[in-house]
Amino acid sequence: MSKVTIIGGGKMGKAISNLVTTGGNTVEILTRSDAVTAVTGEIVVLAIPFGAVDDVLARRADEFAGRIVVDITNPVDFDTFDSLVVPADSSAAAELQAKLPQSKVLKAFNTNFAATLESGKVGDATTTVLIAGDDQDAKQSLADIVDASGMKALDAGPLKRARELEAIGFQQLVLAASNQVGWTAGFAVIA
Amino acid sequence: MSKVTIIGGGKMGKAISNLVTTGGNTVEILTRSDAVTAVTGEIVVLAIPFGAVDDVLARRADEFAGRIVVDITNPVDFDTFDSLVVPADSSAAAELQAKLPQSKVLKAFNTNFAATLESGKVGDATTTVLIAGDDQDAKQSLADIVDASGMKALDAGPLKRARELEAIGFQQLVLAASNQVGWTAGFAVIA
Repeated sequence: MSKVTIIGGGKMGKAISNLVTTGGNTVEILTRSDAVTAVTGEIVVLAIPFGAVDDVLARRADEFAGRIVVDITNPVDFDTFDSLVVPADSSAAAELQAKLPQSKVLKAFNTNFAATLESGKVGDATTTVLIAGDDQDAKQSLADIVDASGMKALDAGPLKRARELEAIGFQQLVLAASNQVGWTAGFAVIA
Repeated sequence: MSKVTIIGGGKMGKAISNLVTTGGNTVEILTRSDAVTAVTGEIVVLAIPFGAVDDVLARRADEFAGRIVVDITNPVDFDTFDSLVVPADSSAAAELQAKLPQSKVLKAFNTNFAATLESGKVGDATTTVLIAGDDQDAKQSLADIVDASGMKALDAGPLKRARELEAIGFQQLVLAASNQVGWTAGFAVIA
């Protein structure tokens, strides 16, 4: 059994928490009011907006050493909604890995709307979580948790593929914001 | 009724040709052996690999002036399969538009495997064609052709979004090449 610490009590944090517990694994949710509560999960999910990451790192980076840290952010420039705020040849996940050299950073969940993680479905298709990362064991640990929930994990490739995953997340947000797909739907992955 | 000229007689060219004629529109397919045949469609689909585009432009760029030109390429570095060959802050479509200032360039079909354009389905979902471009009328002309076929077109945004569409196409190729999705499946778009 794995223990997952989720930083952030918003919609995505709650949906990922449900996914973890549905599969029989254990969750600890830490919100701002739990600032002094220790991180105990071997996997830490940063279920917070991109703009809030540095603040969490300032308080907790030391605690993340030796753990798997999952970045779920879509670093969209919400002023223009026309680009990402990370450099074109990088990604939020790559930046996070650079700031956490003693952690194994994964990119995941950023291509899933919260409602599809709650329902386990995108339309008639099973919700698929795309996971990118450089450490195969770390990816497998998260994939096992996703698969145990009845949803499906796929290996998106090395952490460098976070750039593509963030592009997918951004394009999905563009389609939803223009009312062309619903916030309960979006991109499905069909095997 | 629209007339579409398709440059390229490969799998994608044939699939897009079927899509166009299924919707009651007209197709002209030009392959290498038709080098002297004139382009007559108001929409031109470059159904060729990224590496073949410059050769076609050298012979036909003048003919493309005043027409809608559709870029379907995924400019993947097939030696490493680990990046695109276009600059990170650009796209194959943006480069094509720069070379064809008198054409209206659209990005489309690069997120669709040929088999899903032949069948009209990705799993149980209707095949969706994501179209990016800066000219709304041009996008609508192509969207009308897609919708007439029974498949579905969505507006992915300005041509700048070709960068995201090429990332989606690349990631889908990565998943297929690693046998995690089939070449008859991949990303579906659920409204």
